[in-house]
Amino acid sequence: MIKRRGSKPVRIGTVVVGGGAPVVVQSMTNTDTRDVGATVAQIKRLDEQGCEIVRVAVPDMEAARAIPAIKKAINIPLVADVHFDYRLALTAIAGGVDALRLNPGNIQDHQQVRAVVSASKEREIPIRIGVNAGSLPPNLAGQEPSGKPQGVSERMVQAALGHIRLLEDMDFDLIKVSLKAFDVPTTIAAYQRMAELVSYPFHLGITEAGTPRAGSIRSAVGIGTLLHMGLGDTIRVSLTGDPVEEVITAYEILKALNLREHGPVMISCPTCGRTEIDLVGLALAVEKRLEGIDKPIKVAVMGCVVNGPGEAREADVGIAGGKGRGVIFRKGEIVRTVPESELYPALLAEIDKLLAETS
Amino acid sequence: MIKRRGSKPVRIGTVVVGGGAPVVVQSMTNTDTRDVGATVAQIKRLDEQGCEIVRVAVPDMEAARAIPAIKKAINIPLVADVHFDYRLALTAIAGGVDALRLNPGNIQDHQQVRAVVSASKEREIPIRIGVNAGSLPPNLAGQEPSGKPQGVSERMVQAALGHIRLLEDMDFDLIKVSLKAFDVPTTIAAYQRMAELVSYPFHLGITEAGTPRAGSIRSAVGIGTLLHMGLGDTIRVSLTGDPVEEVITAYEILKALNLREHGPVMISCPTCGRTEIDLVGLALAVEKRLEGIDKPIKVAVMGCVVNGPGEAREADVGIAGGKGRGVIFRKGEIVRTVPESELYPALLAEIDKLLAETS
Repeated sequence: MIKRRGSKPVRIGTVVVGGGAPVVVQSMTNTDTRDVGATVAQIKRLDEQGCEIVRVAVPDMEAARAIPAIKKAINIPLVADVHFDYRLALTAIAGGVDALRLNPGNIQDHQQVRAVVSASKEREIPIRIGVNAGSLPPNLAGQEPSGKPQGVSERMVQAALGHIRLLEDMDFDLIKVSLKAFDVPTTIAAYQRMAELVSYPFHLGITEAGTPRAGSIRSAVGIGTLLHMGLGDTIRVSLTGDPVEEVITAYEILKALNLREHGPVMISCPTCGRTEIDLVGLALAVEKRLEGIDKPIKVAVMGCVVNGPGEAREADVGIAGGKGRGVIFRKGEIVRTVPESELYPALLAEIDKLLAETS
Repeated sequence: MIKRRGSKPVRIGTVVVGGGAPVVVQSMTNTDTRDVGATVAQIKRLDEQGCEIVRVAVPDMEAARAIPAIKKAINIPLVADVHFDYRLALTAIAGGVDALRLNPGNIQDHQQVRAVVSASKEREIPIRIGVNAGSLPPNLAGQEPSGKPQGVSERMVQAALGHIRLLEDMDFDLIKVSLKAFDVPTTIAAYQRMAELVSYPFHLGITEAGTPRAGSIRSAVGIGTLLHMGLGDTIRVSLTGDPVEEVITAYEILKALNLREHGPVMISCPTCGRTEIDLVGLALAVEKRLEGIDKPIKVAVMGCVVNGPGEAREADVGIAGGKGRGVIFRKGEIVRTVPESELYPALLAEIDKLLAETS
């Protein structure tokens, strides 16, 4: 149902971003990049969870020099996050990174930018221009030509356009763009505006969104709204915590919009004064049981027999609890009735059967 | 930045829904409604968390008769959720409920509907028509006049319109509407369509969204996208679990869109290979410390001194950690530098100062 914006595809290692490719999930390590062992271990955990591109900070030369060892030990494309110092970018490129995040306008010397662009072009390494609301360059004084104060989103767009032009002037177009703010409506407005101006693919994110609890909700609202508008080719959820949480949240956002499948989906009712079985306990047990499963099966755990099967018609398999008993249903049709004590094992048996059938 | 849809206001007890009023947060108990003690205790916990309207299921006459005792013991408006049996609705109204959720088209006898409408009109009790994707009436055969199969969202809209007309024909217009599905794009399409057809206020929700982990993300995507479009006057997040989680999630959605203030907001960076302090631990400690605070202060916990204060300019107060030290900043300006060991107490002291100033 979502009509996605047409964007120019770029290739980051083996992964295509933009041009109608499925929305790509990425994350960033929070280990010390110089600690190759810790960084690789974290990337492997991210990879297992479905992370498709990973970024590492490259704050100094020692971090840049760690890249070949990291790259060699991992199986997903690696992006180097570089600020200000072009030598870090050159070392990262030589070290085998698949893409850069770098704002060329922040490098004072254009010859230095040219050196990075030239190396990127030679190896076909895309550059993400990543403008964040809080670090807008001071030369964007916040005035529109009319003299009216310029909104933050417009200043973000102008800052990004400045960086984009620098690259385009050097005949470089392997560009991705991000425009992140903590403020969700500002972020949305910036991407909407940019979509009118360029065709480069968008990397979406809400910056400094917070801890997993609040930050995942904030990210889901911002990224979800943009994706529903058809904007966004890759997403990174930023959370203060284990980056694995970022990947889990990213997939939940994409699954909510039917943009990606990623393991099981569970449909479960909030329970109410009508519920006559321990539905919350059952739902949590089923959620736990589904954790290891890769297939995109839909399982429903519903509180009442009257509405349960109907409400969860799109589920492959489900249970609906009644008074001391419950029904097993598939695709909205009741297949059998079991006593409450047998609901959980009966559902697990149905799930196993379903998995066997679809394998 | 969000331009909200104009809607006809209705009053539920002391709370106005629609007509430009702030978006109202509601939830539903999952206790046995007949157990007055347990239901009241849960409603009090919901109220403490900021729940502004609460709904209880009324599946039988004993539950309907519990309403006066519940109503007497709580301080927020009470909604009775009634299906099929008009006598439950009449008993709930007589018992003092502030609103009903009831689909009049599901009551076969129009004289019975008339009795409910008449009692509701007399006491000025609004009725929410709540259509869920999974329980569409069988007479909506899924065919458009053209013969093309009709989409689920359009069938939901048609079902709701049928219920609305029944009430309107009885000269009743204290109506709220909800159109919930588990599928987010379907839900969004239904509300968008309905917004073109009626001016009644909207109650938003994603039905059977799942456990708190996945369900809160799914709800944030669906409800957040609709709110950003300007649709929605009250929201209920449906989660399989403690309904207090629904209220917390609802406010995080509203705060993300600047539609409501509700306690502190924390801006915290995801940390990266540049971070040289235990930022995750610090952020979680600060989040914990902020839990008891009602005021809508903004606190930032940032990993690096270079970007931290700039990125978190909108924060009232914040810290940014560097190598073994950190800075305290207010509104983006650094006010002092402290050793790492003193960061947490120094931030708490600043928060206390801020709270004292704003009280």
